[in-house]
Amino acid sequence: MRINWRVNKMNLPVILGLLGKLLVIYAGAMCIPLTLAVVLGEWSVYSFLLSIIIIGIPGFFLMRRFKLTEMKFGVREAFAAVTGAWLLASFTGALPYWFADVVPTYIDALFETVSGLTTTGASVISDVEALPQSILLWRSLTHWVGGLGIIVLFIVLLPKTGMGSVLLFNAEVPGPTNDRVMPRIRDTAAALWKIYLIFTAICAVLLWMAGMSFLDALNHAFATIATGGFSTKNTSIMYYNSLTIEMIVAFFMIFSGANFVIYLTVWRKKTMKAFRNTELMVYLLIIIAATLLIAGSLWSNAGNSPGYAFRHALFQVASIMTTTGYASVDFDQWPSMTKIILFLLMFIGGSAGSTSGGMKVSRIILLVKATWAELKRGIHPRVVSSIKLDDKVIDTENLSRVGIFFFLYIVTFTGASIIVAASTGLSPFEAMSAVAATLGNVGPGFGTVGPTTTFAGISLLGKIVLTVCMLLGRLEFFTLLIIFRPEFWGKGKVW
Amino acid sequence: MRINWRVNKMNLPVILGLLGKLLVIYAGAMCIPLTLAVVLGEWSVYSFLLSIIIIGIPGFFLMRRFKLTEMKFGVREAFAAVTGAWLLASFTGALPYWFADVVPTYIDALFETVSGLTTTGASVISDVEALPQSILLWRSLTHWVGGLGIIVLFIVLLPKTGMGSVLLFNAEVPGPTNDRVMPRIRDTAAALWKIYLIFTAICAVLLWMAGMSFLDALNHAFATIATGGFSTKNTSIMYYNSLTIEMIVAFFMIFSGANFVIYLTVWRKKTMKAFRNTELMVYLLIIIAATLLIAGSLWSNAGNSPGYAFRHALFQVASIMTTTGYASVDFDQWPSMTKIILFLLMFIGGSAGSTSGGMKVSRIILLVKATWAELKRGIHPRVVSSIKLDDKVIDTENLSRVGIFFFLYIVTFTGASIIVAASTGLSPFEAMSAVAATLGNVGPGFGTVGPTTTFAGISLLGKIVLTVCMLLGRLEFFTLLIIFRPEFWGKGKVW
Ligand SMILES: [K+]
Ligand SMILES: [K+]
Repeated sequence: MRINWRVNKMNLPVILGLLGKLLVIYAGAMCIPLTLAVVLGEWSVYSFLLSIIIIGIPGFFLMRRFKLTEMKFGVREAFAAVTGAWLLASFTGALPYWFADVVPTYIDALFETVSGLTTTGASVISDVEALPQSILLWRSLTHWVGGLGIIVLFIVLLPKTGMGSVLLFNAEVPGPTNDRVMPRIRDTAAALWKIYLIFTAICAVLLWMAGMSFLDALNHAFATIATGGFSTKNTSIMYYNSLTIEMIVAFFMIFSGANFVIYLTVWRKKTMKAFRNTELMVYLLIIIAATLLIAGSLWSNAGNSPGYAFRHALFQVASIMTTTGYASVDFDQWPSMTKIILFLLMFIGGSAGSTSGGMKVSRIILLVKATWAELKRGIHPRVVSSIKLDDKVIDTENLSRVGIFFFLYIVTFTGASIIVAASTGLSPFEAMSAVAATLGNVGPGFGTVGPTTTFAGISLLGKIVLTVCMLLGRLEFFTLLIIFRPEFWGKGKVW
Repeated sequence: MRINWRVNKMNLPVILGLLGKLLVIYAGAMCIPLTLAVVLGEWSVYSFLLSIIIIGIPGFFLMRRFKLTEMKFGVREAFAAVTGAWLLASFTGALPYWFADVVPTYIDALFETVSGLTTTGASVISDVEALPQSILLWRSLTHWVGGLGIIVLFIVLLPKTGMGSVLLFNAEVPGPTNDRVMPRIRDTAAALWKIYLIFTAICAVLLWMAGMSFLDALNHAFATIATGGFSTKNTSIMYYNSLTIEMIVAFFMIFSGANFVIYLTVWRKKTMKAFRNTELMVYLLIIIAATLLIAGSLWSNAGNSPGYAFRHALFQVASIMTTTGYASVDFDQWPSMTKIILFLLMFIGGSAGSTSGGMKVSRIILLVKATWAELKRGIHPRVVSSIKLDDKVIDTENLSRVGIFFFLYIVTFTGASIIVAASTGLSPFEAMSAVAATLGNVGPGFGTVGPTTTFAGISLLGKIVLTVCMLLGRLEFFTLLIIFRPEFWGKGKVW
């Protein structure tokens, strides 16, 4: 029997082959918590076994049926593959939670998985300390796998990489970077994973030495380097009440919120010049400025010692700016002004090419530069000035894309806030913070969804909307939204 | 003695001449409340007399010294004149309040005046019913004068209008309209004032017939057609509890939130075709959609009758969307979702070329169209598609200006919210609503600055920041911000 696999000229076999491979890799990843469950004799061993069977068998057959001998595909296939991979990873990654019965509904399991993969770290599980260690490890692993991106992993494992992998890379890696299209993209992807792995290991060892248990250190390292924010403790990092742990975590959060391409360049070219990067400088300046503002407010308003004020201001700014979402203190009790600053940081986010969420610092820089140039044009209408970032001219096409991204971000934020407020009992600011925290892949918001509480009490509709927000934020809108264009389905003009 | 009036090549004499003329007109306008004070025998007669002397005499001498025989000036002079006119009108318009001792400080008087001129309608006077009728009339008059714009009035009264008046018109009239640069700009400005005057008169007569006192009807007509929102009653329109009054006011608010150029075209060309306007349709659709959503929420959540729900939903949506800011009910007590919708409407605002504030509907339409086109480009990177509005192609320069305006709006909103929250006791949402309500020239926000309260309790710094927000919103950033470019001061390249 011969089936026509080309729907509206889309190359379906290559997408199905890719998704099959993804399922097999995913089943393989689940063997890690499975092993832990076996070693510790946890009952969750069955939920992992069942999930691996359900995911692995169809994955194996898809992979065999649609061999990826060569990736011949275009833009549509790239978008379809990335969207499909994220949705599939989300729906299947939810199975262990659901089978282990640690969440009330499948939607909750899905929320937790998407929150993990998108490195959001918002949780619907109120008592995480009651979870089996294997489930906690799976939870942190979703952060780690999602952090650098499922597709980047993909590329490393592909047999032949042509234009297809470049397209995949473009659709996946966040931020408006010009360094995206690289000649040897497979090597780059592999090198990124190496850096990622090494720093996760260093972070884990340091946290272990600082007093965490081995498993806690591993979990927190996964969640920190991925700027995820899932903790194995109900009260997050404040459980430890340790300055050492806070400073280790703060360092690695700030590290992970910077562009990984910088580290790659430093590593490859053995030069420190790559650190002379505008986005990195602005990113660090914002952290310093926000820390000083908040520390000042905490010191003067709440009668805290300057040391205490600075310590928690720095940790919380690093945590929110890098969109990790850990809490060293219940910042929901802080003064109004500090909350608005943290709220703002949720929108800015970290750097392009990092594991963080939000709009990304480089986009804000470009928008500020474009604004300044526009004011100049108001006086000299005929003067055309080009906008540069690190000596690279940014063309108008990329600039308008940044502006549109900004608009989409704000519109999505507003629309989702209305639905969340309508479908839950949240106050306007709580609802807006819940949306900002999920859209920016931060995790905790304020009030009912604050640092010491969870998203468990949110309505079903609210959870679904916030789940979509997490995916939209992680895939930066275009990848997900492009499937709504008629051209995507081959109904527009053929190209 | 000869003074060099050209500072860094800027044509100062023409600016000073214009400002002198403005002061004389302004002193003339103050004669209206002065007359009322004399007729009613109010003690505020002295505060008006004193203000008229202080404003009129220097105005007269400036006008005589710098005769406006012909307006020869460029972009810089236009921006300087508009900025100067607004600042001068604000500082001198505050004098009657200050002299009449109805406000505690001069800053409060300034806040009230800027709030009037920018048609914001936020008040620092808690008990307006205790004010003299003449002061109330001056308060409403500032709305009416500021509504169509001080400069539009200016142009009508200028002796010779060359390129200068076109530049002034461009710097003044809000919204991204292509109809700005018109050949016979003086006639257009005069015709706009005629329409404005006629509809104010109709509105006043109808309100009088519906049961308001003559003076109240006049005041409310001024404030309604200007989408201002100052009321002569402490509880705004809810004082009357009259469906007839609410519907009259709602109609004229919606009327005034639409583009006046449409009315002008209909009036001149005697054709209804001008109503086939995309912005007008979207503007009305948003009002209908928001009304239905809020009415539904009020009906289901709060156990109100459908009639009550629809009546107040419509009035409040019309009031906030047109950025008037009247209240027919204390909407601060409404469900969370309805508050976020009203909060969103504060940002959208009315149409370009209207007396309303906010971002303007046409800008939102352009941003949505640009976004949709960008998604298309994601699939067909080489296809260049132009964006049209009512069959007019919008060039990329104007589009990027819209995007930058959007960015500036959000950035100003965020920055001001942080300062307001830091300098007042407002909660995050209250602070954000205060900024959104002043930046969008709406008036009341939520909570402490809600529809039944005033801005009286806000700190001094908060009042100053919100005053700047009102001006930035009314002048749409560029006019005010351009003075911070070095080129404006002739320090950049000469053009
Ligand atoms: K996070
Ligand atoms: K208003």
